[in-house]
Amino acid sequence: MMAGMTDTPHPLHDRHAETLNRALTAITERGYWSAYPESPSPRVYGETAAADGKVAFEAYLGGNFPLDQPGDGDRVTTETSPFGVELNVSYPHATADQLVAAASAALPAWRDAGPQTRVGVCLEILDRLHKNIFELANAVQFTSGQAFVMAFQAGGAHALDRALEALAYAYAEMTRHPGTAGWEKPAGKGDPLRMTKTFHVVPRGVALVIGCNTFPTWNSYPGLFASLVTGNPVVVKPHPRAVLPLAVTVRYAREVLTEAGFDPNLVLLAPEAPGEKLASTLALHPAVRIVDFTGSTEYGDWLEANARQATVYTEKAGLNTVVIDSTDDFTGMCRNLGFTLTLYSGQMCTTSQNILIPRDGIDTDQGRKSFDEVAAGIAAAVDKLTADPARGVELTGAIVNDGVLERLAEVTKVGDPVLESRTVEHPSFPGAVVRTPTVVKLDASDTATYSQEWFGPISFAIATDSTAHSLEILRSTVGEKGALTAAVYSTDSAVLDATENAAIEVGVHLSGNLTGGVFVNQSAAFSDFHGSGANAAANAALTDGAFVANRFRIVQTRRHG
Amino acid sequence: MMAGMTDTPHPLHDRHAETLNRALTAITERGYWSAYPESPSPRVYGETAAADGKVAFEAYLGGNFPLDQPGDGDRVTTETSPFGVELNVSYPHATADQLVAAASAALPAWRDAGPQTRVGVCLEILDRLHKNIFELANAVQFTSGQAFVMAFQAGGAHALDRALEALAYAYAEMTRHPGTAGWEKPAGKGDPLRMTKTFHVVPRGVALVIGCNTFPTWNSYPGLFASLVTGNPVVVKPHPRAVLPLAVTVRYAREVLTEAGFDPNLVLLAPEAPGEKLASTLALHPAVRIVDFTGSTEYGDWLEANARQATVYTEKAGLNTVVIDSTDDFTGMCRNLGFTLTLYSGQMCTTSQNILIPRDGIDTDQGRKSFDEVAAGIAAAVDKLTADPARGVELTGAIVNDGVLERLAEVTKVGDPVLESRTVEHPSFPGAVVRTPTVVKLDASDTATYSQEWFGPISFAIATDSTAHSLEILRSTVGEKGALTAAVYSTDSAVLDATENAAIEVGVHLSGNLTGGVFVNQSAAFSDFHGSGANAAANAALTDGAFVANRFRIVQTRRHG
Repeated sequence: MMAGMTDTPHPLHDRHAETLNRALTAITERGYWSAYPESPSPRVYGETAAADGKVAFEAYLGGNFPLDQPGDGDRVTTETSPFGVELNVSYPHATADQLVAAASAALPAWRDAGPQTRVGVCLEILDRLHKNIFELANAVQFTSGQAFVMAFQAGGAHALDRALEALAYAYAEMTRHPGTAGWEKPAGKGDPLRMTKTFHVVPRGVALVIGCNTFPTWNSYPGLFASLVTGNPVVVKPHPRAVLPLAVTVRYAREVLTEAGFDPNLVLLAPEAPGEKLASTLALHPAVRIVDFTGSTEYGDWLEANARQATVYTEKAGLNTVVIDSTDDFTGMCRNLGFTLTLYSGQMCTTSQNILIPRDGIDTDQGRKSFDEVAAGIAAAVDKLTADPARGVELTGAIVNDGVLERLAEVTKVGDPVLESRTVEHPSFPGAVVRTPTVVKLDASDTATYSQEWFGPISFAIATDSTAHSLEILRSTVGEKGALTAAVYSTDSAVLDATENAAIEVGVHLSGNLTGGVFVNQSAAFSDFHGSGANAAANAALTDGAFVANRFRIVQTRRHG
Repeated sequence: MMAGMTDTPHPLHDRHAETLNRALTAITERGYWSAYPESPSPRVYGETAAADGKVAFEAYLGGNFPLDQPGDGDRVTTETSPFGVELNVSYPHATADQLVAAASAALPAWRDAGPQTRVGVCLEILDRLHKNIFELANAVQFTSGQAFVMAFQAGGAHALDRALEALAYAYAEMTRHPGTAGWEKPAGKGDPLRMTKTFHVVPRGVALVIGCNTFPTWNSYPGLFASLVTGNPVVVKPHPRAVLPLAVTVRYAREVLTEAGFDPNLVLLAPEAPGEKLASTLALHPAVRIVDFTGSTEYGDWLEANARQATVYTEKAGLNTVVIDSTDDFTGMCRNLGFTLTLYSGQMCTTSQNILIPRDGIDTDQGRKSFDEVAAGIAAAVDKLTADPARGVELTGAIVNDGVLERLAEVTKVGDPVLESRTVEHPSFPGAVVRTPTVVKLDASDTATYSQEWFGPISFAIATDSTAHSLEILRSTVGEKGALTAAVYSTDSAVLDATENAAIEVGVHLSGNLTGGVFVNQSAAFSDFHGSGANAAANAALTDGAFVANRFRIVQTRRHG
């Protein structure tokens, strides 16, 4: 009985089968692998790719973004570039009901297409985005304030890698059982009981992705593609200050969907007018069954408490912590931490904030270093990276919004600066808002200050009674407020073990003795998990089985024979 | 750095490796497989097993149940057997804080033992329970009211199969990545970047299992063992009327844990005094991070809304539906449905309630049958199975509680009975409360009556305008209230397809044209999913990836080298 759905693969499945298979291997090995080269070099991407991407980006400025989706006729323009560049891109507006209706209408055919076809189409979307990676990188750069190379990598290649990682997990989960199984139960001397069982992968409903200002693509892609490949139409609600990267994404996704014979309304952009609260209206819509969000703890908590009809994945604020006990490479440690604090002016959800150092100092390969010397060593590393404006801005990028500037002003009142933040003139973009990082000395007793997140180029060198005391602070602050990253520096294996135990207890990923070209604020797709879901900073990890398994259900039909 | 946890397998892992591997294969194939024989025959279990189990069960009656766990010194006795047998087993009471404190203290060593050891210990627990399956079956029979063979099968062998299935999914999920991975990233002409990454499986916290009256083991085991094997200590809160089956379970689990060198407080019994609301106190405890519940929609909804610190898995009420369009085996259809309605007096969460039949009748192999003839055919099949009290009670068992009797009284006011419920004297247990099923005629317009669950031996033959109308009712009632099962009878492939589409839309598992020895109310572990998580009757399925993936998190540590 029951014809139901077919799962004959689409030609796009075959076209990308090798990539998919390699990604499926990568998620079981979790060693090094990447599908999308992170170097923007012309040797990799061709001589004209960079210029073509820039032209494509500039063509959007001051105009109506080309998006043929249902809407109410209004247009929305909300972006201001941290680089001071005039954007003025105008996006077509739609109401929550219009978006949900269009998405819902697109669902049945996409569901019935089955996992093999859906993953092929999604891989083609990634391929299309990759072909337009420079355009995407420019869009990320000029909305987030990231410097170009970082925007290319984090906003382009790495975002695509994370998307592919999510696709691989979701595909593995959907196909861990066969689509059909025979069941034959012995029945004594009689004929066995025979049944044929069909297992349908059924999406949850409409999915909502709420993007953030700093990493509009990287943080949105895993949820977007995990939801889409499992059969859920996706409404993409970008941050009002970082619409363009997701508009470009939605544009190419719709293009591929149309070419593949599906309703383009499987992916819709939901640009938000000022004060409209479209995200909240969508998140509470009864048809919206999945929400992915990156942003503030306050709004993430609100979503978890109120979007009860949906499965809600949140990444929120945290207190990323470094425990410094001792080191056999003082210069390397300072240089490594200095880079972390400098990159994108510390505006990463993974940037270290609380650096815990015994007030009596630490043992190093350069002899005993006092608390002040350790703090000064880190500060000097930051200073060196930012001393030359032309080189500095290629690391710091620009300040994403006024909230960061307000915190920079506020933090001058709370402790002694080891390093003050400086205003830098951007050599290429006179309107860019650039600030170098500040490092502020605190005492362990200043709990009220360092037990909140100071998002931006702000970190604290905190004097503790001992490394044991530092670990207590790690446990209590991360245990309460969460963190996405932690690091430890020690030459003592007992300290490393104790820190690892503390990290496991509070559920934070830990990096040990990073002194080279790997940084605590960076995670590699297919190998490092981003977030754990085991503390208050995030209720899920990118990307693991738990991130994908609840995005669909299995509905079974069975019959004799 | 970071010694951390080891995962050298415990000898118990090796002892049960073959069972585990076979189970891991079964969950990828989802064909027929069972690890625990369902026949209570002496040829399978030995000549003395049944008698020994009965003796062991009877030794508990009227005494203090042997359980050496922390407590407050009070004792609790709350069970009344549906068979009228005096139970009077007294259980040691503990407060929520005592239970959570003892469970929390047991967590670190269990977490650090790693997946290989934990799965070995859990498999040994299943083996120990299997060695005591007759004791368990008696405990299930005399608390739930199930007849002996059913108690042996559903409460013993099938419950153990479902537990093993949950273990296999959880083990697969925990071990889909290696514990340690090398990462080597090319770095141009320089040395590659090298990192070693360790992925720790970290439990969520204390898990709570809230058992039900009708299937104290079958419905509890998947959550219990999925939580335990992923590192979470489990507090087992039995239904006050079905404590003994879970007390026996906890007893043997603690015995095995102790033998394996672990803290027995990894599994604790939480017997509840009348009016104490211990389940709610436990469910809201901040340390309780996982809750598994089977029972009423009202309480399941309360848990989902209030136990916000926990991941909550619920199985609640629903409207199990049968669509009758036509059949080429009228006798087989009636016999099959009659058995479903009769088994355990319809007191299964999977028993059909709403049987939708066109008021103009249906085509069958015996010619056209009117609505009344179809209803009468099903009623006659029930009547035949229950006509002889001695044979009948071995199918119906006894009535689990007074709520069922109240509904049986209530339903006489709402429609015309095709078949009235009868009181039956149990030949062996004079105090047993036995009732045969009633089938009541309703019209499709009697929505208020059939759109609520009438748990117990109550089903409705509902006259609809047409099969299309029946499908509308399936969509609207199951769409709103949920269902665990649906069935369809039709000789028309278009009707079967349309029913399948409706089932997919409302997320209910569908059986087609069952006329032989497979029944809509029965699901086979390792092959059939129980519940889908895709409608209001349950927010998860037994047992799939989504059921296990959120019971632990991965916390990563990385270092150079």
